[in-house]
Amino acid sequence: MGTPSDAPELRRDPIAGRWVVIAPDRGRRPSASPSEAPAPSADGPCPFCPGNERSTPPEVDARRDPGTAPDAPGWRTRVIPNKFAALRPAGASGPEAERSGIYERMEGVGAHEVIIESPEHETELSALPIARIAEVLEVCRDRARAHAADPRVRYVLPFKNYGAWAGASQEHSHTQLLATPVIPNVAQEELAECERRWSGTGSCSFCALIEHERAEGTRLVAEDESFVALAPFASRFAYETWILPLRHASSFESAGGGELRALAAILQRTLAAMRRALDRPCYNFLIHSAPARQTALPWYHWHVEIIPKLSLASGFEWGTGAYINAVPPEEAAERLRAPERAPAERPAS
Amino acid sequence: MGTPSDAPELRRDPIAGRWVVIAPDRGRRPSASPSEAPAPSADGPCPFCPGNERSTPPEVDARRDPGTAPDAPGWRTRVIPNKFAALRPAGASGPEAERSGIYERMEGVGAHEVIIESPEHETELSALPIARIAEVLEVCRDRARAHAADPRVRYVLPFKNYGAWAGASQEHSHTQLLATPVIPNVAQEELAECERRWSGTGSCSFCALIEHERAEGTRLVAEDESFVALAPFASRFAYETWILPLRHASSFESAGGGELRALAAILQRTLAAMRRALDRPCYNFLIHSAPARQTALPWYHWHVEIIPKLSLASGFEWGTGAYINAVPPEEAAERLRAPERAPAERPAS
Repeated sequence: MGTPSDAPELRRDPIAGRWVVIAPDRGRRPSASPSEAPAPSADGPCPFCPGNERSTPPEVDARRDPGTAPDAPGWRTRVIPNKFAALRPAGASGPEAERSGIYERMEGVGAHEVIIESPEHETELSALPIARIAEVLEVCRDRARAHAADPRVRYVLPFKNYGAWAGASQEHSHTQLLATPVIPNVAQEELAECERRWSGTGSCSFCALIEHERAEGTRLVAEDESFVALAPFASRFAYETWILPLRHASSFESAGGGELRALAAILQRTLAAMRRALDRPCYNFLIHSAPARQTALPWYHWHVEIIPKLSLASGFEWGTGAYINAVPPEEAAERLRAPERAPAERPAS
Repeated sequence: MGTPSDAPELRRDPIAGRWVVIAPDRGRRPSASPSEAPAPSADGPCPFCPGNERSTPPEVDARRDPGTAPDAPGWRTRVIPNKFAALRPAGASGPEAERSGIYERMEGVGAHEVIIESPEHETELSALPIARIAEVLEVCRDRARAHAADPRVRYVLPFKNYGAWAGASQEHSHTQLLATPVIPNVAQEELAECERRWSGTGSCSFCALIEHERAEGTRLVAEDESFVALAPFASRFAYETWILPLRHASSFESAGGGELRALAAILQRTLAAMRRALDRPCYNFLIHSAPARQTALPWYHWHVEIIPKLSLASGFEWGTGAYINAVPPEEAAERLRAPERAPAERPAS
């Protein structure tokens, strides 16, 4: 019979060349299965609330009030290993790919962390003050730097699932971070395509894209002196929005404090526009960055991708990469640019 | 303001190199939105039931009783253009990619068809007799051949969304088919990876995979003299199952009648095993084939991929290609291989 162990493992598909994490431990987490109501489990006390710190693994980082102890209240943001981790720290040396015929596998070494964004159970990221959002982003960047310093780690991916429809299994607002010993295939594709264009033209595709979009204007959602938020020309999903730094930089790891405060402001503005236009959508956000330690690639440009979860993916998209999007990005951007309703238009309470 | 027209359009993302279909018309189809109950709309009469043929676009093909008229009852399977088509037939010549700076776009030429599998509203594909499933597969193959004869078409993709959680917007059992003027990026990746391996080893990756799996056995779900069903080594999703022909052939277009009858039998067996093991899951299936008219590639091997929809994708997968799967394929295969419960074990009714 051969019961596989519960240790996570990376496996490479020999047909498509992609790496997949097989993580049996994840099977035990609170479920967001289609056969259940799409609301995160509310059974028992919230493990992310202050006072319940002992119900999570010990914290690996926290921004907390002076004099407060680890794994006790007094924190503003708190980083813990994911209890149902897809990848785990292990061993002293890098994992080696083992071959067996056409197959390759690798120990599931890396990290899977949860960044609890706020002690308040009810407050979602975009409702925090800008300085607090910036602090969450700083924690993400610091964790990205810490993992990138580990030579076994080849890619760091901060991401957020907001709402059960976007895959969140806890209601309390949180961001996650994966550090992996392989480069995920979408990142590989972007890196290869951008390097190819750079070899031909000498310019960064993202820098060219930003210039084009700021000149054309129809797909802009928001901009300021440091960042631009836009609906990408070939948006895969309705209301997909990217936020890009105007300054060329390949890696999120190298973002400075001022840049993260500016990112916090435009992220808050963009998420607020989505809430307004789309009636509090569930969403995912991802920070795409160059591979770990590649902080000066001329052809790659870190950015944030936000994907509201407005329809059930047909699965078709998964299997083909042939995305069908019913909302032209020009319409999406126009709707997201619409100003907040003036007070006069609001129904008198 | 610039209201985009409703004509579908293909756009290439300059960062990842992928093509996306922007199809505004699709916005008007019955919704399977997360804000609604996950049951296909039951408003009004079913447009796919006999007697309601006039509520669909005119049929393009049908297997029907002798003497019955098109768009009238008497059919067993019926092919119609999708009313909310992502792509449409148009023009006499192939679409040309138009460039604008870093962007490429193309008229959304192609086809998007619905194959209504049966006149019975309640009967799902796997509950049909094998000869009827084979007929549905033959219709898919015939439509694939018809579209592949159009030089504008570069890829034909038959697929099925079963159940609202898998993206179906009609309850009446149906398969769909897309014919596209570009090669979807997952297909491109598979083709490139397989050609690369073939250049080095002279062998088809799929043929090598089949040999390995039949020898090892732990991931086999079912096999007979023509096909094998297995849980792939690097399964992206829990209980993902592939069905592969033992005979090397790059294209589904070239499958013969005997092969399709054998495929019908193993497909029925596999879907029945999933129903038994997973409590009637929603699922997607896709037929991956070589590009149109490439019927003799030594490095590609057509196959069916079945993906039960058991959890809400976290969106994370979409954005990264970093799939996390909590069910090792060896466990999935073991559970799918489990025989039907013996009558004695069934509760007395």
